[in-house]
Parts: sequence; C-alpha cells; structure tokens
Amino acid sequence: MPPTPHPHSRQRPGLADATRGRILFGGDYNPEQWPEETWHEDVRLMKAAGVNSVTLGVFSWAKLEPRPGAREFGWLDRLMDLMHDNGIGVVLATPTASPPPWMGRLHSDTLPRDEDGRTEWWGGRQHFSHSSAAYRRYAAAITEDLAARYGSHPALTMWHINNEYCTYDWGDEAAATFRRWLQDKYGTLDALNTAWGTAFWSQGYGDWDEVLPPRHAHYLKNPTQVLDFKRYTSDMLLECYVAERDIVRRHTPHIPVTTNFMPMWVGQDAWRWAEEEDLVSVDIYPDPRDPFGAQNGALIQDMTRSQARGGPWMLMEQAAGPVNWRGVNHPKPRGMNRLWSLQAVARGADAVCYFQWRQSRQGAEKFHSGMVSHAGEEGRTYQEVKRLGAELAALGPEVTDSRIETDVAILHEWNAWWAGAQDGRLSSEVDYPQVVRAWHRALWEAHLTTDFAHPEHDLSPYKLVVVPQLYLLTDAAIDNLLAYVRAGGTLVCGFLTGVADEDDRVRPGGMDARLRELFGIRTLHEWWPLDAAETVECDGFRGTLWSEELEAANDAELVVPYKGGELDGLPALLRKGRAWYVSTLPEQHALRDLLADVAAGTGVRPPLDGLPAQVEAVRRGELLFVFNHGRETVTVEVPGTHRDLLTGEQVTDSVELAHHGAAVLTP
Amino acid sequence: MPPTPHPHSRQRPGLADATRGRILFGGDYNPEQWPEETWHEDVRLMKAAGVNSVTLGVFSWAKLEPRPGAREFGWLDRLMDLMHDNGIGVVLATPTASPPPWMGRLHSDTLPRDEDGRTEWWGGRQHFSHSSAAYRRYAAAITEDLAARYGSHPALTMWHINNEYCTYDWGDEAAATFRRWLQDKYGTLDALNTAWGTAFWSQGYGDWDEVLPPRHAHYLKNPTQVLDFKRYTSDMLLECYVAERDIVRRHTPHIPVTTNFMPMWVGQDAWRWAEEEDLVSVDIYPDPRDPFGAQNGALIQDMTRSQARGGPWMLMEQAAGPVNWRGVNHPKPRGMNRLWSLQAVARGADAVCYFQWRQSRQGAEKFHSGMVSHAGEEGRTYQEVKRLGAELAALGPEVTDSRIETDVAILHEWNAWWAGAQDGRLSSEVDYPQVVRAWHRALWEAHLTTDFAHPEHDLSPYKLVVVPQLYLLTDAAIDNLLAYVRAGGTLVCGFLTGVADEDDRVRPGGMDARLRELFGIRTLHEWWPLDAAETVECDGFRGTLWSEELEAANDAELVVPYKGGELDGLPALLRKGRAWYVSTLPEQHALRDLLADVAAGTGVRPPLDGLPAQVEAVRRGELLFVFNHGRETVTVEVPGTHRDLLTGEQVTDSVELAHHGAAVLTP
Amino acid sequence: MPPTPHPHSRQRPGLADATRGRILFGGDYNPEQWPEETWHEDVRLMKAAGVNSVTLGVFSWAKLEPRPGAREFGWLDRLMDLMHDNGIGVVLATPTASPPPWMGRLHSDTLPRDEDGRTEWWGGRQHFSHSSAAYRRYAAAITEDLAARYGSHPALTMWHINNEYCTYDWGDEAAATFRRWLQDKYGTLDALNTAWGTAFWSQGYGDWDEVLPPRHAHYLKNPTQVLDFKRYTSDMLLECYVAERDIVRRHTPHIPVTTNFMPMWVGQDAWRWAEEEDLVSVDIYPDPRDPFGAQNGALIQDMTRSQARGGPWMLMEQAAGPVNWRGVNHPKPRGMNRLWSLQAVARGADAVCYFQWRQSRQGAEKFHSGMVSHAGEEGRTYQEVKRLGAELAALGPEVTDSRIETDVAILHEWNAWWAGAQDGRLSSEVDYPQVVRAWHRALWEAHLTTDFAHPEHDLSPYKLVVVPQLYLLTDAAIDNLLAYVRAGGTLVCGFLTGVADEDDRVRPGGMDARLRELFGIRTLHEWWPLDAAETVECDGFRGTLWSEELEAANDAELVVPYKGGELDGLPALLRKGRAWYVSTLPEQHALRDLLADVAAGTGVRPPLDGLPAQVEAVRRGELLFVFNHGRETVTVEVPGTHRDLLTGEQVTDSVELAHHGAAVLTP
Repeated sequence: MPPTPHPHSRQRPGLADATRGRILFGGDYNPEQWPEETWHEDVRLMKAAGVNSVTLGVFSWAKLEPRPGAREFGWLDRLMDLMHDNGIGVVLATPTASPPPWMGRLHSDTLPRDEDGRTEWWGGRQHFSHSSAAYRRYAAAITEDLAARYGSHPALTMWHINNEYCTYDWGDEAAATFRRWLQDKYGTLDALNTAWGTAFWSQGYGDWDEVLPPRHAHYLKNPTQVLDFKRYTSDMLLECYVAERDIVRRHTPHIPVTTNFMPMWVGQDAWRWAEEEDLVSVDIYPDPRDPFGAQNGALIQDMTRSQARGGPWMLMEQAAGPVNWRGVNHPKPRGMNRLWSLQAVARGADAVCYFQWRQSRQGAEKFHSGMVSHAGEEGRTYQEVKRLGAELAALGPEVTDSRIETDVAILHEWNAWWAGAQDGRLSSEVDYPQVVRAWHRALWEAHLTTDFAHPEHDLSPYKLVVVPQLYLLTDAAIDNLLAYVRAGGTLVCGFLTGVADEDDRVRPGGMDARLRELFGIRTLHEWWPLDAAETVECDGFRGTLWSEELEAANDAELVVPYKGGELDGLPALLRKGRAWYVSTLPEQHALRDLLADVAAGTGVRPPLDGLPAQVEAVRRGELLFVFNHGRETVTVEVPGTHRDLLTGEQVTDSVELAHHGAAVLTP
Repeated sequence: MPPTPHPHSRQRPGLADATRGRILFGGDYNPEQWPEETWHEDVRLMKAAGVNSVTLGVFSWAKLEPRPGAREFGWLDRLMDLMHDNGIGVVLATPTASPPPWMGRLHSDTLPRDEDGRTEWWGGRQHFSHSSAAYRRYAAAITEDLAARYGSHPALTMWHINNEYCTYDWGDEAAATFRRWLQDKYGTLDALNTAWGTAFWSQGYGDWDEVLPPRHAHYLKNPTQVLDFKRYTSDMLLECYVAERDIVRRHTPHIPVTTNFMPMWVGQDAWRWAEEEDLVSVDIYPDPRDPFGAQNGALIQDMTRSQARGGPWMLMEQAAGPVNWRGVNHPKPRGMNRLWSLQAVARGADAVCYFQWRQSRQGAEKFHSGMVSHAGEEGRTYQEVKRLGAELAALGPEVTDSRIETDVAILHEWNAWWAGAQDGRLSSEVDYPQVVRAWHRALWEAHLTTDFAHPEHDLSPYKLVVVPQLYLLTDAAIDNLLAYVRAGGTLVCGFLTGVADEDDRVRPGGMDARLRELFGIRTLHEWWPLDAAETVECDGFRGTLWSEELEAANDAELVVPYKGGELDGLPALLRKGRAWYVSTLPEQHALRDLLADVAAGTGVRPPLDGLPAQVEAVRRGELLFVFNHGRETVTVEVPGTHRDLLTGEQVTDSVELAHHGAAVLTP
Repeated sequence: MPPTPHPHSRQRPGLADATRGRILFGGDYNPEQWPEETWHEDVRLMKAAGVNSVTLGVFSWAKLEPRPGAREFGWLDRLMDLMHDNGIGVVLATPTASPPPWMGRLHSDTLPRDEDGRTEWWGGRQHFSHSSAAYRRYAAAITEDLAARYGSHPALTMWHINNEYCTYDWGDEAAATFRRWLQDKYGTLDALNTAWGTAFWSQGYGDWDEVLPPRHAHYLKNPTQVLDFKRYTSDMLLECYVAERDIVRRHTPHIPVTTNFMPMWVGQDAWRWAEEEDLVSVDIYPDPRDPFGAQNGALIQDMTRSQARGGPWMLMEQAAGPVNWRGVNHPKPRGMNRLWSLQAVARGADAVCYFQWRQSRQGAEKFHSGMVSHAGEEGRTYQEVKRLGAELAALGPEVTDSRIETDVAILHEWNAWWAGAQDGRLSSEVDYPQVVRAWHRALWEAHLTTDFAHPEHDLSPYKLVVVPQLYLLTDAAIDNLLAYVRAGGTLVCGFLTGVADEDDRVRPGGMDARLRELFGIRTLHEWWPLDAAETVECDGFRGTLWSEELEAANDAELVVPYKGGELDGLPALLRKGRAWYVSTLPEQHALRDLLADVAAGTGVRPPLDGLPAQVEAVRRGELLFVFNHGRETVTVEVPGTHRDLLTGEQVTDSVELAHHGAAVLTP
C-alpha cells in the first residue's frame, strides 16, 4: 500500500518539460475579475517583471459553465492567445474546486455535511462532496471539454487539477462510499470488526449498512474508524484527482499534470498522492512574523522535494505580502519575499509562483496580497517582485534540474500522524507537526540539509535517519528500520514511536518488541506526558512535552538519565550501538547539539564550517546558496574563490550578508 | 439612501409631548408577574419615589392572547386606570418581541434559523423571524387591537414598539425575503454579480433562486453578500417596526412612537431607524466595574442625542443595580446610579427610566436589578432611587427640551462597521467599537463634549470632525469630507479609512485617491497590523493595533514619524493643512493630547479650564453639569457665582465634589 | 420527595452479602476483547494478585445480541464457569449502556438529540435515549434473559445495572416524556405556569403540547424549565435503572443490585438514586497531579459513604495508572495507587475495584490504564497491584462492615446545584462543586472526618453542620436547619444560601426571612460577586469569589468585618449564637482555621493531636488509618501501643511514614 520509491518514470512528462531551463516565475492569474483593458496592463507589468508562467482558470467554473451544460470559452480563448502572444506559458486549471451556485441548488447532494450534520453551503469555495456522483459527472464533463479545447494550444505548459483538495464529508452519500472503501479494504465485516476492535464498547457490526462515517457521538469515537475515515478521505479526494488527471492525460500525454498541495496538510497522504502526479507542487505560506518562518519554509521545501524523489518541484503558491487568513496578517518586510523565494530554489524549486498576480479588489481574499498589490506598479511589493524576476531569470540556466544531495533523512508518515492525533490519547499537548518541526529545526540549526522519507522507503542512501515521532509503524516499516541499522545506518528515534500497528492496535509491551530490542529497552513501564509549560530535568538539558519510565536492558548504554523526580536515574537518552532513543523532546539547543554530534559521528557535516546562527547554507548541484535570516549583517567564511550569481561579483574567502541578504556562489 | 439630516418635522409628536416640562422617571413595569395586591404597593412606592412614567406590556403577548386570536385585556384595563388614577403616564408597548409558545408550535416558520441551520426555539425571547408572514400577521393584529383599545386612554403617553430588535434569520423564508430585498436593490442579477464580485471563487449567480443568506460554508464567505445580509437584516427589522408604527399612528397621530435601541448595537443602522421614530430611546448598561464606564455611558448618550438630531432623547432602560448577563455582574456602588442618571440628563436625556420597576422573583432575569430590589423598600437601591426621583423632579422644569451645543463631531456609520468586520480581514484585533470608544474617550478626557455624525451629514456646524476609523466610505461621504475641509473645517482621520466603496470594493491604491490627496499620501505601500499586545514606537508616543507603510507626498507635513523597525521614518501622523491623518492608534494619553491640541487650534475649548482628570463638565442650555467620577474628593474651579440646583446652595468660584459627587450649576 | 434517611432495610441484600468478610478486589473484566488463551493467563495473574471479584458484561450487548433478538451466551457461560472454578466472584452487568449498532440503524428514535438538534450517533457509547420505548424494550429483554440464565450461577455475587448513567435528550420522544413527567408533577398547566414564572417574557403555556425540553433559544432560557429538565433527566435515567433492577430482583431476590455513580456527577440526584440501590458504588478518578487529589478522593469517599447511610460502599472503578480523558493524563507515581486505595478503605470502602483488569489494545480507551498494563506482568503497575492485593486480603477480616463515626456534616444537594448553575446568574465564577470542595478541604486540612447530608436529613447526630452554599432550599430544609440549631446544633453557613425556593423563585428579601432571622441579618442589600482573581479584604483574612452587602441585626455579633472598599465595616462573618454566616469564601487557611475553631468549640477534635499537614488520619471502627500524602517523611505521634496491620509490627507512641506511606493501627 505505501509508495515504493522508484526512479521517476521517463515515460511521463515532468516539470522540466515546462521549465526548459528557466525558473518558472508567475502565479495565479484571475483576469475574469478585471475588465479586458486591465489584461493588457497586466501583460505589460508581467513582462517587465520577467513573468513567464501564469495559472488560469482555477476558480472559473461559473464563468465557463454559467448554466448546467453551457460553455463559455471565448474569454479564455482570448486570454490563452494573449499569453502566448507575449511569451507567457499557461498552467491551465480544472475549475472543479468551486462549483457554480446552480450545482448546489439543483443537486443538494453535492454539498458536504460535517460531522454534526451541518451542510456546507455554496458562497465560499470547496463546497463539493468527493462522494457525490453528480459532482463528479459535472467535473469530468468540464475537464473533458477544457482538455479538448486547449490541449493543443501552444500556451499550455501544465495541467493544474482542482485546488488544495481539503474537504471532508460525513453525509449519506459519503457513508455509502465509505462502506465501499471499507469493503475493498477488509473484504468481510469480521475483518473490519477485528481491525476496529469493535469488541470494545459493544460496537460489533452485523451488517455493512450499520457502518457510518464517525459522526458526532456522545463520547470518544472508535479510533480505528476515525483513522480509516482519514485514509478514506485522502483516497476519495485522490480518486477525484485521478479521474480528472486521466481525462487530461488522454488528450495531452505530453503535458505534465499536478495538483497543488497545502504545506504538510493533514488531510492528504502526500506520499501516495505524489505517485499520481507528473510533478509535485505546493503552496507555502510561512508567517512573516514567525521567528522560525524561514525554517518552516525549509521544512516544506525539503518535504516537497522528497515527495518529488529529489527532483525539482514547483512552488505553486506563496504570498508576495500578507495573507488574510491568520488572526493578524503581517506583510513581508523588505527583502523577505526575495530571500524566501531564493531559499525555495536552493532547496529544489524550479518554479517560484504566487497566489496571485494582481490583488483582488473584491471577494473573500481581497486582503491577500498579490504580485501587484493595491498600491499598483509603484508599490514596494511589485518593485521587489520585479527585482526578483530579473534575478531568477539569471539563475535559471545555472540551477534548473540540478539536485540536492544529503545524507540525512527525517521519517514522516501520515498514518502515524492520523492515528496519533486521536481523541483519548495521553496528551493533547503532543502535536505531531510541532514535533516534526522541532526535529527539523534542530537539523536546520545544525546547518544540515535533510530529506524526508517514508518509513518504508529505501533508507540506504542515508547515513543518518531520524524519527521525530511515529506512533504507528507497520511491520514493514519496523523491518525497514531494523534492516537500515543492521546495514550500518545510524538511527535516532524520538518518544512514543512504534506504539501501534497499522490498525492502531497497541503493540504488546506498549512499543514493538523488536524496536525495544533495537534500542535496548527492557520494559516500558509508563508514559509520563508533561503539562503544557512543564519541563523535566535530564543530565545536561531539560526535556519537554513527554517523558517515559523505561527500564534499560543490560546491553544498552544509558547516555543521559533523568535527574530527580519520579524518573530519577532512568534513561532520557538511551543508545545501543547505532540506535539511539530519546524518551523526551529535548529543549531545542540540546536536540540540535545531539543531532549535530550524532551526525558528525557518521561523517555528516554542514556545507560550510563555522556558520553563524541564522545563516542558512545549502548546496544544490554545483551551487552554494547562503542566506542571512538574522537582523545583523554577518560575514560568512567561504574558503576559496567563488562567483556570486546574484551580483556577478567574485567572492574570495568570505561573503558579507546584510539582513535578508543572499548569495548564490559558483566555484 | 443614508439619512439626510433635516429639522425635526413638527407635524409629528415628540418626546416633549410626553415630558411636558418634567423629566420622565420610571421604567418597565411587569405587573403580570405579581398579584394585584402588589400593584397597589407598587403605586405607593412609585409615588414616593417620584415615578411619573411606566412602560407596560413589553412581554405580555401570551397574557393578552393566550390562544390564537383570543384577547384578554381586562387586567391591562385595570392597570391603565390605576396608573392614570395615580398620575403616572403609560408608555404602552406592543408585545411583539416574544410570541406566545402557541405560535411556534402552530407555525414553526415563525422560528428563526441560525447560519448553521439550528432552530431558535421558544422558551427564551425574540424567537421570531422578521421574515415570517405568519408572525407579521399576528403582530399586526395584536397591535391593531391594542391601539384601538388604548389609543384614547388618558394614561397613554407614548408607544413603545417591540423591544431591542436584534434577531437574524438564515432560514428559507428569510432566503425569499433576502432575494426580494436584493432584487429591490440591484434590479438585475448582473448588477448583483458585479457588486458582490462573484467572479472570484466561481460564485456567479445565474438565477435569483440560487441566492441565499450567507449560511455556513467551507471557508470564507463572500464579504459583500455578508454585508448585504447585515443591511437586509437591519431593513427587515425596520420593516417590522414600521408596520407596527403605522398601525398605532393611524389610531393615535398625536402620540409619539419609539422603539428602544440597544447601545451601539451592531445589528441596526440606527441613523436610518431614527428617521422612522418620533423620539429616540436607548438602553444603556455600562459595567459598574468598567474604569471607563462613565465615558462609555457618555458615548451612547452623545450618539443617541445625535440620532435625535440634538434634541432630547429618552433613556428607556438602565439598571438601578447589577445586570445578569455578564460573566460577573457587579452592583452599582452607592451614588453611581444617581451620578450616571444625571450624566444622561446633562447629555440630553429628558427621560430616565429603568428595566425594571420591581425586580422579578422568577424567570431568566430575576438577578437583573430593579428600582425596587429583592431587598424591597428598605434596600439601598430603592432608597437611592427615591432620592434621585426627587432631584429629577426639581431639575425637570430647568432642563427639559434644552440643547447641548458642541463644535466637535465624531463620524460613525454602520456600513463601515459591518464591512470592516468581515472574516478574512487583515487583523481580527481591530474591533471597530473599541476604536470609536478610544477616540471618544480621548475627547472625553480632554473635557470636550462631542456629537456623532453620519459621514454624509452636513458637517458645517462643526469646527472639528474626527474619524476614528471608517473602512468603507461612499463617494458621497468622501465628497462631503472634502467639502468640509475645503470650507475651513479641521479633520482628523484614523487608520484604515476610505479603503472600500459601498460594495466593499477596495478602492485603487488601497485608499481613495481623493482622500490620499487630501491628507498628502503619495503611496500606501502596505498595512502593518500589530499583534494583540504589540506597540510600535513613534516619535513621542507608542502606537497600538495598527500601523501603515505610507509614503508622504511632498506637500504633506510629517508631524510624527515611526521610530525604528520596518517603518522607521515613515509617517505615523501626517498633516496637510487642516487635514490630519493618523496611521496608528496612539496610546490613550497621546490621542487625548493630539485631539486637545488640534481642537485648541480651531478654538474649541472645554467648558471649564483646569478640570481635574475624572471630572466631567457638560453644558446643557444654560446649565453646567459637573460630575466627579474619581475616588477622591476634588475641588473644581467655577469662576463666578452659581446656584447648584441639586442642593439649592450658592456656589462661588469653586465647587467641591466627593466621590460620585454632582453639581448642576445655573448662573 | 427528598429521601428520608432510614435504617437500611434488612429485607434487601447488601454489600456484605458479596464481601463476606473480604475486601472485594478486582475490576471490570472485558475478556471479549481477547482470545480465550488470554483468559487463562488472566486467571493466573488474578489469583497471584488476590483478585476475588470481576465485573463482566458491561459493554457486551453487541456480543450477546449480535442481531435483534439473537442471543449468544456460550462465551459468557464459559467465563462464568472459569471464574467460579477459580474462586473469583462475578459482578454481572446489564449491557445496556451501549446498544449495538443495529439498534440505532433500525430505530433512529433510540438515538439522543442534543439541545441544538444534533443526533448522537453510535460509534462511541451511551448513545441511547432514556425516553425511547424501543430502547427500553430491548434493554428489558436482554436483562430478563441474562437474569434468567445466570441468576442461579454460583459465581454471581452482584448485579451492576448499565454504566455511569449520564445521557440527556432534547428530542421529540423526550419532549413527550418530559410532558408526562411535568403532568405528574404539576397536574395542571396553571400550576406549571406558576412554578415556571411564565408570566415573564410571555412564556405562558396554553396547551401541554407547547411544552418542550429547553432547546436552543435566542437568549436566556426559563431557569425553572431548565431546572425541571435536570430533575426529569435524573428521574428518567432512574426509571431506566429501576426497570432493569426490578427484572433482576425478580429472578434473584438474594443478590444485591447497584449501578456505578460517577464522582459527584451533576446529572444524577444521588440521594434519590441511592434509595433505589442495595449498595452504593462509585467511580473515583482524581488527577494524580492534582495537589488536592487525595482530598478530592476523600470527598467522594465521604459522600458515597453518606449515600450508603454510613454503611460500607463499593469503589467500583478507579485507575491503576493514568486515565485517558484529560488533556494530559499522568500515571500514578509509585505508591499512590496503594495509598489512595487504602484511603478508600479507611473511609468506608469494602470493595476496591478498577476499570479495568487488562488494559485494552484497541478502542477508545486503550490508553486508560488497567491493573495489567501494556507492560504486562513485569510492569510496575501490576507489581504494585499485586502487593496491594495481598495487603487488602490481610486487612479484610479486620475492617469489613465496620463504620466511621463523625460529628460533622456537610450539606449538599443536587437541586441547589442545578438551580444555582443557571445562565443569567450573578457570577459564572461561582462553581458549586468548587465551593463544596473548598469547604471539605478546609475540614480535611483541619483533620476532621466529615459526613455529607441532605439538608432535609435528620441532623441530630451531628455537633457541627456546615453549608458551603445552598442557593435553593425547600421550606422543609429551612425548617430542618432551624430545628437543628434550636436543638443545640452549631451551623456554619456560606454565602448565597437560602436564596430560592424549590421552584427557583427568589425568596422575599433575597434570602429566606427565617434564615436571616437565624443568622441575624436585617437586610441583604446587594450581592457583590468578585471577579476571577479578585479578593476582598476582611479583618484578618481575604475573601474570594463573592461578598455581600449585609446589614446586621442588633442581636447579631459582627465577628469579622470587611475592611475598606464599598463594604467597609459590613459583616464578612456574622454570628448569632450557634448560627454562623460567612458572606464570602475565606481563603483556604482562614476557612480551615474558622471551621477548626468552631468545631473545637463544639467539642469536635481530630483523631490525633498534632498531626502534620499532608497527613490524613481516619478512624474506622477500632482501626486508625494514617496516611502521608506529603513528599517528606514524617513522624506521627500516636500515644500508646498499637499494631500496624500492614507490617504486623508493633508501634509505640509514634509511627514514621515515608512519602505515600500508610499505617493501619489497631489497639
């Protein structure tokens, strides 16, 4: 079931077919919101800014099909031609993320119901049920007609299916597809009853029709039912994607197809999804005020590159300025848009795009920035976009299609996330993405570039593999980890890992016996979750979030014990050979030092020595990208002589970087 | 559409027809909760306290019409007679704010639905849909019969329609009236699609029946749809009011009609509503613990007086002690009820009334105070009410129908509030009423009495006009502001003003070009909202809530720049001639000093020099009201000789006021 | 209506019929979750740990009746025999707390609706409506068949009806039973209208069919309707219990019947329920991290013993380690499970049981601990359970059926709680259970063991009665308090007591006149609730939560006045003879000192002098239990010579107790 990594099939087109040596630069373009005279002004500004790609049609369904079955393509014909005439490629979207109002009115079954039974009405977006036959029929028809009409248009460079798939449905039509999905998975009700542990709380099913999505209940729901519902939801949305993808592929086998992920979105198993894409694209929106915004961006970039199997990927959406969906939405300070865009390139992006080209004057996102802000051509935002466009144009030939090599991987997996996030767990303070971010940040602060991998992937390329926290591990994953260490790999594993099997059944002993053997744990007596602001003393650092009452085996090395309290003397950090186990979340600097030390022990080192904090250095192909995320100007030692592709200047032995400064060095 | 101020029509009766030289004193009287022997005890206590007005029948529908179509008037006949026999006037209410249980049972369509589809059942109050034909039919019938029966009763002094109109409805009957309202407004679906910007997110409507109230959606709703729904809701409730008003007017053209506003309630455009009333009445409930309770009361008083076009107004409800709808409900300390009642008179009230006369022993508001508390005649509450009644009786002839003159106006408008409060805005920390309160408080602390005005009102009476924050301004409003400054007026304008047009369409440049020209703003690059507890350094003070990245025009004066940070050197306070723009919310004392200085520059001064903080001084007609809201006794300099109407004593050069002390000085 | 205390009827069997000189030790056993081979391993571990009682079948409905009307008893037959063969008694449960999925599907009317109209679906537990005729029919049938089959099985020692009754229902079938309940109570609609005060807000009912459960409303609901709905819910659940109890009683008149209460659960009037049980059982789950966990456990133990009329009671469920329903769930540190179990015995428990025997691997409670944790036999949890089992086995003959004598009672009553918790009260900071806990803790810290009593109980056994806060008191309760003081009893009464009558009608004067006379209160002018973190200065201590503006009568003694502020000089603590009134909640040490002093004045003293803080000493029969809840080792002075039943050692004059240490001393 989990994706087996394999070399990218050369029979399918990929991102390189769209980039052709350039970095794609541009964004969502929604000209239907503007009079046609603005289109020509747009083209002028796009060309001045080096825009070479726009995404059309993401939310155009009502415009294309104003009445059921009607087609209005004239405006889009003119736009496609206009783009082509001006050398701008088009990423054409199927408009299926937001059905026209008539659909909900004529087919109320296309509207999702939430777990409380509330209808999600039209008037926003994404008010479609993945399970609705009517919705799928209409979506296939418009996709078919779009592909037929524009498949051979010379402007077309890529297909963009739907947008940020993210809906759930607990309604009756979903109940039917959930049962169908479960029947496919389990075959028999007995198998389902066993997997779900329905002997608990008298939940045994005697008839398939009794099985429902996990709707509002009096008390805790069945966790495996909830887990399967998450798997099912990801799969149902994927079915929707694949159905549209297959239609456009039939028309245009040479044009790559993608759908844009949200960053580390809980609802989609992106490892599985990426298998079905010709190229992986993602939307990245770190908070400009987040002190770890740059690191969080790097995390998504690393994860997306890994989903793209190390190949180049597409930054489909970012914001040139503020977004409008946080409580307080901060603009990007001068230089940040450029810095974070270059960071994406450093970490493998061959496309740097935005939502959206021109900031809307109306609608729910009119305070979401655009490449052209309300301030227009004179505004700081566009001026900075323009500068960036020129720089990317210069970088393009040097960087596109080159790869990032790294010896470190973080294991991450959706089923573990889903199962671990159940109600009725020991600590609601443990937030899986937060734990992953903490471990990635420790590596980032140790200046180590890292991949992400699925726990069943081939890990042999890596010298160091870290597991922030994988509550659920399949037998295959456990075998894989064991084989990795056996073959000489070094593994560092965080707390609460290997607890459950793929049905979210707790493994005997509370942690898989083979893993306990691997790490040298005789008995796991109790988990000791920590309160929100609580820390636990260890010898040399403080732990946060979690601790464990472990009894070490005789052949294990107790590296760091807990100090004082109920766990005094028990292992916080335990080691057996190349397998390390951390039963708490060390405070950030301690986790950084631990991982840096272990990495050094395996021969893994940063790309440069003596890097200041807040400076990020990443090698991509032959190039060395260096970024200053700190407020102070820094001098970075770079032995030897390089050329900075951004300035064209020669750099000898060191480079000085101001706040938000960047250099792209070539030998 | 917005109300044009005009002299009060003399063909209609007004508050003066009810006061006739007295200050109305009394409150809601709900004798149906008590045995008839209590009524006579009530009359004795009312007379002892100087009560001259009671409001009857506000929640009597089930008593008057216990079964559909039945009428039981006997008890009300006796009460009307009893009041009249004892010289107490009656404000007679239509009972339509709380339909009897039988109505919901027989006509479930009379019950509102919320945006999640939940029914609002009977068992509380206000469980009626403004759109329900059945409700309106029953409401008209009982109103008709009440007016017919009591229209010529000598006790009748005023009509009180419904109570605190405040309901919303997202149900199917409301959907139909919403469409009717939209058809009236837009004429065509094209016009609606344009106004709502439905090109965004594929929301184009092809049939009127597709248009719904903004029900629960997957993500952000269409902001103009939400804005129109707020306008529609205010208008639908107003339709209900007007329908009942027209019935009673037909029977009693000589009796003034009102409905009681809630203080600065978001749901009603009170400028429009006031147009339809013979007198404006309001409920005011500041928290006795609020350190700015007195100022917040003054704000509502100023606003209500302005809605009454400067004429006297009615304090329909206040609390003699605690309310019961806050988390913690504090009683009024000794003297506070008197102080705040006199404050209302100072600011134009000719009626000082309460909810309610006698505190209930049962029901949802039994912990809401009454003029007669649970402690009864001996209780401190009644004893203080009695003292106040005597004082008001003495003040009445001196004060009723006199006016407050002021040179300062604050602009306030509901559409700006509604549009600015949309989801998907840049900062959820910006709370419009809080900003208005901050500006009013700055003026209050500068001892300047102020009016409120609609931005399309004639502003020529004012030397100084301030705009705390008006996100949405119509073209007419902008013309009005420009004309005001052109004619010599001084304008001080707060952040995020003039952003949107009346359809909530962002104006090019993010702020109307004429306003930018007025204030000397070349480019508005970005809005920089601040986090909850964040401040931004300006030269001389700190800003809160918001800041802006502005580029000043050459002809503007940069009065106060930001200091440090991303906005270093950019204008926090900008001026071009008599037009001032403040791109942040200065901390309170700085805003006070700024407004005091600008006011002084226009010749506007407080009623007395050297007023201590916490002392409020207001001139009404010939009288000077002076109040001490502080805890310490103060001496207030009042040059010359006056008589204090409260004590009858002569006052020379100064008056001493204890905590909660008041003086009403006449030359 | 309220339970009259009476000697336990000897015609009914009781707990002693199950214990027969042993302390019951064991817990919920859910073998249907495990393969049969595990059953035999379970028996081995049970016997090693001294387990002599298991509860079977609590959640076995779907297993017993997999299809409507089917019966599968074979597995249970084998289990009953297995238990009997190994000398383990069986508490057999009716499985009616969690209907099988087929029931909801076939009879959607069995599913409760919440006040918003949401369905509570199957998939969790307790998804049954107490009002559903279909549910009751199925529940009766399975109960009948269980009783017929196992009534004469030699393993059977007790019936356990349902589990933790706790559901509500606002649906249509519930509306019908609510009306039926109201008709039984009130007879006529007039009486209901009077009791509910429907004259307020036009809520007068003209037809029974208009009366509904208090569903979602626009604003505050009718508080007496809400109060009656809580009474009705408790009564309806009790009807469900009684119906099943009567069935099993018919089959097995000699077997005692119980249902397990949740600790101080708001939804059941446990005074009434206890009347219908042969023995009282309860679930106790203090948070191991709660610094007052031991005291909170003691509170429930005292309350349960009092509901059992001083007789022994059953600890039906506790956790050997963590639970899984808090935000963060902490395990029990070493020794705590033993300590808290012995504490329950000290305070009258003759049964120490757990949820559950073996921790589940699947389902919603797999992180809730068991006596055998995931770590299995070697885990600390089981090892500690085993030690405890041995100690309890030794204690059994010495302690079972002996009684705790005390001279102090705390009055507690559900109607007062329900009525006082209404929306629209003066302070949402006042949380009734928190106030009761504060008073019980004050007594606990004064080392005084206390009973709980219903305010209409015979109070003559007590020298000191305290009322933490009883907002609602019936006339009978007031008479009872007056008679108690008149007869020589000492009464200490907290704030906001005696405010309302049984219909939640505020008594004239805001507090019953006879109570005011009792305490020497002339006038209660105003209640002054305090803000969350606010305190009020009194002479010698600080008050919290609440204060009152009281005018003392001439014959009262003002013991402690408020100092400063609005209440300066008014009574915080007032006394008239043996009747004390505290108008605030004194900070904890002051309340402790006050109650210790008043108790001492009545001759009530702790079981030992000079007890250190954190040490608990309780006499049960001839035995003296001493516990150290503090972190430090302490020496407790125990004059004379005793034998410690836990160690078998002789103890002279003092005993040393480590952290979590315990001694059970016999003369």
